[in-house]
Amino acid sequence: MAAELTAHQLIATHRPTLDQALETIRTRAYWSPHPEHPKAYGENGSLSLPEGKAAFDALLGNRFDLDQPGTDDWTGAEVSPYGPELGITYPHPDIDTLLPAMRAAMRAWRDAGAEVRAMVCLEILSRISARTHELAHAVMHTSGQAFMMAFQAGGPHAQDRGLEAVAYAYVEQARTPDNAEWSKPQGKRDPIALDKRFTPVARGIALLIGCNTFPTWNGYPGLFASLATGNPVLVKPHPRAVLPLALTVRIAREVLADAGFDPNLVCLAVERPEEGIAKALAVRPEIKIIDYTGSTAFGDWLEANARQAQVYTEKAGVNTVVVDSTDNYKGMLSNLAFSLSLYSGQMCTTPQNLLIPRDGIATDAGAKSYDDVVSDLAASVNGLLGDDARANGILGALVNPGVKARLEAAAGLGEVALPSREISNPEFPDAVVRTPVIVKLDGAKPDAEAVYLNECFGPVSFAVAVDSSADAVELLRRTVRDKGAMTVGAYTTSDEVSGAVEETCLEECAQLSLNLTGGVYVNQTAAFSDFHGSGGNPAANAALCDGAFVANRFRVVEIRRDA
Amino acid sequence: MAAELTAHQLIATHRPTLDQALETIRTRAYWSPHPEHPKAYGENGSLSLPEGKAAFDALLGNRFDLDQPGTDDWTGAEVSPYGPELGITYPHPDIDTLLPAMRAAMRAWRDAGAEVRAMVCLEILSRISARTHELAHAVMHTSGQAFMMAFQAGGPHAQDRGLEAVAYAYVEQARTPDNAEWSKPQGKRDPIALDKRFTPVARGIALLIGCNTFPTWNGYPGLFASLATGNPVLVKPHPRAVLPLALTVRIAREVLADAGFDPNLVCLAVERPEEGIAKALAVRPEIKIIDYTGSTAFGDWLEANARQAQVYTEKAGVNTVVVDSTDNYKGMLSNLAFSLSLYSGQMCTTPQNLLIPRDGIATDAGAKSYDDVVSDLAASVNGLLGDDARANGILGALVNPGVKARLEAAAGLGEVALPSREISNPEFPDAVVRTPVIVKLDGAKPDAEAVYLNECFGPVSFAVAVDSSADAVELLRRTVRDKGAMTVGAYTTSDEVSGAVEETCLEECAQLSLNLTGGVYVNQTAAFSDFHGSGGNPAANAALCDGAFVANRFRVVEIRRDA
Repeated sequence: MAAELTAHQLIATHRPTLDQALETIRTRAYWSPHPEHPKAYGENGSLSLPEGKAAFDALLGNRFDLDQPGTDDWTGAEVSPYGPELGITYPHPDIDTLLPAMRAAMRAWRDAGAEVRAMVCLEILSRISARTHELAHAVMHTSGQAFMMAFQAGGPHAQDRGLEAVAYAYVEQARTPDNAEWSKPQGKRDPIALDKRFTPVARGIALLIGCNTFPTWNGYPGLFASLATGNPVLVKPHPRAVLPLALTVRIAREVLADAGFDPNLVCLAVERPEEGIAKALAVRPEIKIIDYTGSTAFGDWLEANARQAQVYTEKAGVNTVVVDSTDNYKGMLSNLAFSLSLYSGQMCTTPQNLLIPRDGIATDAGAKSYDDVVSDLAASVNGLLGDDARANGILGALVNPGVKARLEAAAGLGEVALPSREISNPEFPDAVVRTPVIVKLDGAKPDAEAVYLNECFGPVSFAVAVDSSADAVELLRRTVRDKGAMTVGAYTTSDEVSGAVEETCLEECAQLSLNLTGGVYVNQTAAFSDFHGSGGNPAANAALCDGAFVANRFRVVEIRRDA
Repeated sequence: MAAELTAHQLIATHRPTLDQALETIRTRAYWSPHPEHPKAYGENGSLSLPEGKAAFDALLGNRFDLDQPGTDDWTGAEVSPYGPELGITYPHPDIDTLLPAMRAAMRAWRDAGAEVRAMVCLEILSRISARTHELAHAVMHTSGQAFMMAFQAGGPHAQDRGLEAVAYAYVEQARTPDNAEWSKPQGKRDPIALDKRFTPVARGIALLIGCNTFPTWNGYPGLFASLATGNPVLVKPHPRAVLPLALTVRIAREVLADAGFDPNLVCLAVERPEEGIAKALAVRPEIKIIDYTGSTAFGDWLEANARQAQVYTEKAGVNTVVVDSTDNYKGMLSNLAFSLSLYSGQMCTTPQNLLIPRDGIATDAGAKSYDDVVSDLAASVNGLLGDDARANGILGALVNPGVKARLEAAAGLGEVALPSREISNPEFPDAVVRTPVIVKLDGAKPDAEAVYLNECFGPVSFAVAVDSSADAVELLRRTVRDKGAMTVGAYTTSDEVSGAVEETCLEECAQLSLNLTGGVYVNQTAAFSDFHGSGGNPAANAALCDGAFVANRFRVVEIRRDA
């Protein structure tokens, strides 16, 4: 087949990027090949912000064709959290036609080898990067993220996570050589010798079940880890957030075809309203890998029922910040205020429970009572979000009515330290924009525990009064062990307390951010350096991204013969 | 604590060995630090053959004390397949005392770090190596292996597999640095910077469920992979093969104590007759990893029920050899004869089904009919085992009455091409020694399929007449897909047939040996080079040993703070 893109061209273009990624996952220093500034786009074939907006607008109200086999219907009912209906319909799959077509694509993809697969993945990421502004609008109008966040998290940061997965996948496959000559001495006799050939082989078809809030950021690691290890990937987006992954699938199919591979290595499965296609797909014998981000209930169901597949889940947890003491009270408050506000607290990494000693804490600004800390934090949030334009840029919109309902119910759960405020968005008057609520709870009261030990996804935090920092650490331990946590934060100037928090996080397997007072927030992780989740507590059974995330997506077949 | 062995000493002694192991799992060339010749032992503190025998004899009829916490009884009823009762009793655990003691040992082991853990594991292996002759007798008199096999497979080869697991575990943990300084440029502003610390943390207590036939060879990979990644290991031996693992546990505990660690990092759990302790242990919440070798039924049960644990299983499969053609008929016959005879076919890797075209095959000795091939193979087995002393040295003894019963029933399954012969063992008159049986079956007959598509563990092979080599390949595919296979063999001079067999093995994920006619046999795999099992077909969900076998035995916890 005369491929438009040869392996040689792909390697010449992308091998240096892969090598830098391989180096960075070893050093875990800062690096990204994907620019974070909107103005960095618009040249060398990439779309500028207005071009990306125009490309997005052109998709609205139309069929999104992918030229996939087995399309038996068109479906789609996305409504932007900012108000407008997207009006896009997508191919609905006849699974019994689509899955065999995907399997038929596997052999050539396997025979291409790990390096070429990595190069094709990097070309896909490169073309995604060029259309970052188009994807940013797609992410914004499906997740409700504010534009800058949709641009950064949905664009370069998601692409970084995809590239990270490709790097792990490559290094994991390349650790075994393609060939070996094995020669075993036999004393005075001739050695016995074997020629051995080693081939990484895919497990089967991978299913990616996308989420509503971060369709690309949470989707790319699994997608690229599976594809780079030889598995076709069937992408099942969240019905409210189809477009970002549909664009991704379209780009992947274009690149695969240009490189001479079967585009059916990446396909889209969009469901009809209430169809629940994920459940049916997850137990199909052809599906050997599942990546899932979403509710604990369905994640647990997948782990229990999709027994024919390797299942990687990111579910929900209860994220805790221990507030013991600080030498930068103002920095702590502003850091926490931003963490609680960003994307209206709709991140799986947003802190939920702030554990504060009821007798108060020591700070560089003097002793602060529990009430002081809570009201100062409330004031800090109010300061951050006091200007409506700025607030809109940080909060984005509530992603769905469930979040709004939880927010409204939160006011009845305890004493409200910071009420939620409705903010209007002049550009999108139908957007539901709300500032976060902070509710006071007494950690010692059993009825309060039933509240704060459950995940309350959205802009709701609990300021939990605890007896002491030791009490806080014990509650932290119990929370992580029983409920899981994607993140843990702590503020303390005490070596004893930091030691106890660190030991707890090591023993209960949670990622810890200590004394963050600057421009990094507990809810943000950087690809190539930070692990997202640990895979060792109930919030997630895998971390993004590490060796375990990729090593079992393929197996190695050895063919040996007498030399 | 004043350790007898310091980290410094351990690193000076063992780091070069680890480095060589790390290099070898990359090149997959031949290497072993463990001598394969009985006479290589007896100096530098290692036991000679008579010393090993004497050490073994001294254990017989006595209590085997380990000074473990929570011993509530003494139990043990091992009888050598060669006849004698061992008369050894072992500590029976009170699990509710033992498991907490094991957990208490974890923190210091974690804090030691990956390199020191690897060094301690290598010291354990080194002391095991010095006692290879003692272990060889223990393996012989629990598995029924002949002495040379018990010595080699139970000694150096098992130690190689343990070392291989340590190497994989080390490289997997060391891929993430202990520390990173992360600094992200912010244009004209100061960069934002974080100090990051990464710690590999264990999952919890690992349970090793040993098997009867290869207690050390199949046990060491899981034991050392778990221990090297920070997990305490509870060893639950097969009740008929306790001693080899009990000796291993004793040595491990001695080394751990000498190195200043809690010996309870490695403990033994021996069950009372019919107690079924593995089932109870497997679902304990403290048990986070399980390594298992044994029947498919219990392996499937573990995978379905021990949901709190990572479960690594090696179960059973139906191993196939496709016989299409050969340019070395004599070499093929003698190679196959040895494969069928070694340890009375009681290896999970022994071929069961020999698929031979009913119209015969082409060979360098002329065309051979199906009947020729089968009778020539029978003659080759008879030649190999014609001398009783030599036969005893190859066959060993039947490991248990179940194997004997299957062997006896096999004669009724079809036309017997090679009857089994009873061989007396002058040294051990009570040993049950039998030559293998070969039974002819017609692959086209449905009632035959019900026979050859089930695993018949022991010295039973089926010469299955097939319509053609293409038919053989299709049957191979179906066998691997439905029943699993630890090994596949093929003999062919045809590129078309070898291509079809290779493609089948790549697609169905089975390890293939092609045209072996010399001193390597399909049922043998070498550590550092060959993968034992693929982890991708029903015979096993893991391969010994690869990245996936170790990567999920630990997680990495990150602690980050403002720089």
